[in-house]
Amino acid sequence: MLVVMRCGATDRQIQGVVQAITELGCEARQLHSAQRTTVNVVGNDERIDSARLASLDGVQDIIHLSQPYQQASRDWHPVDTVITLPNGLKIGSDAIAIAAGPCSVESEQQILEVAHAVQEAGATLLRGGAFKPRTSPHSFQGLGARALEYLARARAATGLTVVTEAVDPESVDAVAEHSDIVQIGARNMQNFSLLKRIGRIKNPVLLKRGIAATITELLSSAEYILMEGNANVILCERGIRSFDPGTRNLLDLSAIPRIQQASHLPVMVDPSHGTGVRDLVIPMALAAIAAGADGVMVEVHPDPEEALSDGVQSLYPEQFAEMVRRARQVASAVGRRIASPAPAKLGS
Amino acid sequence: MLVVMRCGATDRQIQGVVQAITELGCEARQLHSAQRTTVNVVGNDERIDSARLASLDGVQDIIHLSQPYQQASRDWHPVDTVITLPNGLKIGSDAIAIAAGPCSVESEQQILEVAHAVQEAGATLLRGGAFKPRTSPHSFQGLGARALEYLARARAATGLTVVTEAVDPESVDAVAEHSDIVQIGARNMQNFSLLKRIGRIKNPVLLKRGIAATITELLSSAEYILMEGNANVILCERGIRSFDPGTRNLLDLSAIPRIQQASHLPVMVDPSHGTGVRDLVIPMALAAIAAGADGVMVEVHPDPEEALSDGVQSLYPEQFAEMVRRARQVASAVGRRIASPAPAKLGS
Amino acid sequence: MLVVMRCGATDRQIQGVVQAITELGCEARQLHSAQRTTVNVVGNDERIDSARLASLDGVQDIIHLSQPYQQASRDWHPVDTVITLPNGLKIGSDAIAIAAGPCSVESEQQILEVAHAVQEAGATLLRGGAFKPRTSPHSFQGLGARALEYLARARAATGLTVVTEAVDPESVDAVAEHSDIVQIGARNMQNFSLLKRIGRIKNPVLLKRGIAATITELLSSAEYILMEGNANVILCERGIRSFDPGTRNLLDLSAIPRIQQASHLPVMVDPSHGTGVRDLVIPMALAAIAAGADGVMVEVHPDPEEALSDGVQSLYPEQFAEMVRRARQVASAVGRRIASPAPAKLGS
Amino acid sequence: MLVVMRCGATDRQIQGVVQAITELGCEARQLHSAQRTTVNVVGNDERIDSARLASLDGVQDIIHLSQPYQQASRDWHPVDTVITLPNGLKIGSDAIAIAAGPCSVESEQQILEVAHAVQEAGATLLRGGAFKPRTSPHSFQGLGARALEYLARARAATGLTVVTEAVDPESVDAVAEHSDIVQIGARNMQNFSLLKRIGRIKNPVLLKRGIAATITELLSSAEYILMEGNANVILCERGIRSFDPGTRNLLDLSAIPRIQQASHLPVMVDPSHGTGVRDLVIPMALAAIAAGADGVMVEVHPDPEEALSDGVQSLYPEQFAEMVRRARQVASAVGRRIASPAPAKLGS
Repeated sequence: MLVVMRCGATDRQIQGVVQAITELGCEARQLHSAQRTTVNVVGNDERIDSARLASLDGVQDIIHLSQPYQQASRDWHPVDTVITLPNGLKIGSDAIAIAAGPCSVESEQQILEVAHAVQEAGATLLRGGAFKPRTSPHSFQGLGARALEYLARARAATGLTVVTEAVDPESVDAVAEHSDIVQIGARNMQNFSLLKRIGRIKNPVLLKRGIAATITELLSSAEYILMEGNANVILCERGIRSFDPGTRNLLDLSAIPRIQQASHLPVMVDPSHGTGVRDLVIPMALAAIAAGADGVMVEVHPDPEEALSDGVQSLYPEQFAEMVRRARQVASAVGRRIASPAPAKLGS
Repeated sequence: MLVVMRCGATDRQIQGVVQAITELGCEARQLHSAQRTTVNVVGNDERIDSARLASLDGVQDIIHLSQPYQQASRDWHPVDTVITLPNGLKIGSDAIAIAAGPCSVESEQQILEVAHAVQEAGATLLRGGAFKPRTSPHSFQGLGARALEYLARARAATGLTVVTEAVDPESVDAVAEHSDIVQIGARNMQNFSLLKRIGRIKNPVLLKRGIAATITELLSSAEYILMEGNANVILCERGIRSFDPGTRNLLDLSAIPRIQQASHLPVMVDPSHGTGVRDLVIPMALAAIAAGADGVMVEVHPDPEEALSDGVQSLYPEQFAEMVRRARQVASAVGRRIASPAPAKLGS
Repeated sequence: MLVVMRCGATDRQIQGVVQAITELGCEARQLHSAQRTTVNVVGNDERIDSARLASLDGVQDIIHLSQPYQQASRDWHPVDTVITLPNGLKIGSDAIAIAAGPCSVESEQQILEVAHAVQEAGATLLRGGAFKPRTSPHSFQGLGARALEYLARARAATGLTVVTEAVDPESVDAVAEHSDIVQIGARNMQNFSLLKRIGRIKNPVLLKRGIAATITELLSSAEYILMEGNANVILCERGIRSFDPGTRNLLDLSAIPRIQQASHLPVMVDPSHGTGVRDLVIPMALAAIAAGADGVMVEVHPDPEEALSDGVQSLYPEQFAEMVRRARQVASAVGRRIASPAPAKLGS
Repeated sequence: MLVVMRCGATDRQIQGVVQAITELGCEARQLHSAQRTTVNVVGNDERIDSARLASLDGVQDIIHLSQPYQQASRDWHPVDTVITLPNGLKIGSDAIAIAAGPCSVESEQQILEVAHAVQEAGATLLRGGAFKPRTSPHSFQGLGARALEYLARARAATGLTVVTEAVDPESVDAVAEHSDIVQIGARNMQNFSLLKRIGRIKNPVLLKRGIAATITELLSSAEYILMEGNANVILCERGIRSFDPGTRNLLDLSAIPRIQQASHLPVMVDPSHGTGVRDLVIPMALAAIAAGADGVMVEVHPDPEEALSDGVQSLYPEQFAEMVRRARQVASAVGRRIASPAPAKLGS
């Protein structure tokens, strides 16, 4: 931590800062330049609340030289985390995971139909919302517990691994029981009670980036989960808020290499929510793979025109199959491969 | 709802849209201009999920002509909502409420000291965090239930009304019991489970705008609370995310008249979190009052240099007293007044 | 300047940084903490291009402790700049300037009519666009040189001081001749050729903040003008880009106290462009004055429904008169006053 | 154009809108729904300034159904524009152009050395700044006319095509004479005087997206150039402003397919300025190609540690060679190829 004094700070003000640092159990070292004095905090500055220093007389700024997370950092854990799923899929390995499915589970038939279609096209994960957080209370909120059962049946029928969202502490256990990966949505990225609760289950977690979250904040939220003992966190870029109304969100693909530099956790990309526009999904999925993503998650609906939510960004099954074909080429070009789906279960 | 067809859409595509609208129980009216065709949906288009139409062949865009909230809208409820608190304070009246207190409750002595100081200077509401949502799990998270008791004692001693934050469904009842106004923080503005839970208590609610929420989204979140039966919602602008690192957040004062045009709910402003810089708090508080705010909430700490969180944006008590003096002048200039504090309780 | 080394930087990497700093003529001082090493640059670090250091092996970040501008800074020039106009108006004094007029000059009659109306209502400056930078080449681009003559006649008729925009080096002289204050629009805030050209005229300059410019960038652009010898720069907040489509721009009123802390130059606010919505102009104008603005510039059109550009944000003359009346109250509440208009010229 | 009336608009207000449309030479058609009335403008609504309608009593919003540009649009010109350069390179074809070189031309030796290095590694275009627009007037501003001569010599020596920036109307002719492609930088994207001037030269133009420009605004700026008669415009995504301080800019790769849908003009990507971080350049370059870019432009410096500007984002020559090798793989995966460099000139 570095305390930057204002231009013209008095000796008394500088001594006040030095004394405060000393009282907090750290050492203070002053540096005087032509323009201003800075005071470096030497020692374990994690214990110091910078606001205490920032509010002292004559202080202009506090500069943090370390991150607000540890367990999520590559400094702390240099080797890539690889997460093994029940069906053998390893997220974070050379095999890129493809998750696909409808925005919302709408019926048992719908989810079974999509599950078979996306498995055939090359998906290894089935996505589908049971509990849907929606901006307006007047919008469709998901089928809830019923949808979880449908998802479990689709999993049994296809061998696909299931990822679905938990929206509050109460629903965590049910979601964890019926699915493989528990998703935390963008709106809940800083719902810290939920993060702590999710840190105490055994399922891998897919943590989506908040709509205006920095990478540092995303990793700090992952830290809440890791600190509770759940080490299997997958991060997911899904678009951030920007000024151009031409897309629903702005997909930030630089998040992929930035996360990979700062953290050992795997990273997936959701180009469906990330753009909100069907015609942009395939090019952005291919770009994500070229940039190094460990997985891609897209919305596929057998009949987007009938979808109860987000149909406008869902791929048609044949578009999805085309996406997987092209993704194989791009994955190979960057020295990786698309993970192979489990063989469909007998009798499915 | 208006369906804009792509330039060059075929008759078959247009008929597809018309048919879909008809099947959904509404009437479709076509308009052909030189450049493109639009199809207007006539009837109760609230029932239609626009994504169904957006995904039809040949559709370029869907334009919503109505809002995703009703009970929160001024169209639905033209008269200003006025919320009466136990100590007689009326939020949304000509009397402007001043809420003040520390970011976090740190000890019984601290909160009592601040409560007396801010009451004397002219505050009518006491703010103080018991449960603190913090970006990093390594930061101070608040004293929790103990802080609620201290707040209740400060209320008893001063007659000030208390506002404090609930961060999850479990803590709602305890917060509601020990405080007067229950705050929902910016990070939880779209924690819909929490909003629904808060909609079933009787206390007034202070709903803070999310860090990247539009006014429409803020009002949609208020709608979640109103729909559960709690009509006493106060909205609060507290700064949004922007590109200039010079302030912690960007305080959006245009939110005040925008909310007042769109909704009947009262609106407060928090210039402490809204800027994150102590020297900006007073000018922004005065500006908020000039722009029509129904209340201002600021952080005051008897000794900001010792504050466990957010000291850098807290006013010193004498600065707060100065702020109230100047706020009285500005309130009077716009035809309002600063609400008078309750007389201090005997024996306090 | 402070060079932050990566966690785990080697001695060789640190020595590389130290050597580079020494070769550049400055002194390097190392600080080793538990987590990482930092190297402070002592001496006149203005001469060093930080990119040279940032690109060295093992460097994580460069932290600048000084600003990219000097003459615009309050450190360099602690006393407020006050700019005296031909009609005696002093911008930056206790008297707040009100500039008003149409977005575009459309005819001699229109500008004369507005000039008399706004003068009567209390304006001291007449604004009106002769050259209009427009996003689309298909939009109305202004009357050009002809409009400058009309403005000069309106000035002669009323005694109002005139402010209008120059959009390229070629038009600077004509604009400077026919107007009092030359405006640089938001789109040209970083048109450095134009800034240098404008720095060589004698007229005061109104420099508008770019749509995504930080305060530091705005002051750096002012520095371009000051360095050429023109000390009379007025800064103008006019709204920045944000994510909420509910307003055309987001008016950042915290820019007022931020500029006043960082710089000695006066600051005005344009709530018409800053919001793009007529009903928001008056509350934002009053808020700007409460926050400490040295002036307010608004669009007024005798018949906004007939305006050739930006009619939607123009005030009706009677609204403008109401704004001035209320602005007087707020100015008085913050210890200032609205500047008095010059008496109308005889025979006007 | 669609005029949305406020909820509860009176018949008189609706008739006012209808009358205004009629007087402007178009036809008005009303649509009454349960909640509100809309009035569609039928006919050539290009001639109507929407602000006239927006300011009428009872109007809530104006919705534009057409774009502010024509010649730049794919509707107007459905076939992809392919631009042929003097060395035979075709931008917008299946061959992807690689532009490389230093941020600034620093000496004849430096530019010759880089030119040979990047040509050998596979570049077809040489970039290098002669005139550098810099935020601070205290920063290095480029060698100017001298640099243009050095670039011309490097072109003669290598056969590479040269792209460099013109910053004002005065420098356009010199830049056009000594280079092949004239670049308009992000800060000048809405310097309309410069755009018009550039529209009257014969060289192809590389138009960079402004730091907070929408795709619609970028295409509108291209329209300024096209309307003057210069049809050879290449658009360039180079990062936009966002809230995360972790990168200098946020590279928006969705701009590639969005531009390709809306326009026939080719699109390049600059991941060096687009991220500002050397380690992000290669992954983002590969992603850009996967997303469909027609070219990639990166900074390469023989010794980034000695670079006078932007060294921190420049690739080392060996990194650039690695980038081209990997780019060939990704280009092939998406059915394209990297354009082949011209053979080096004899005697070079």
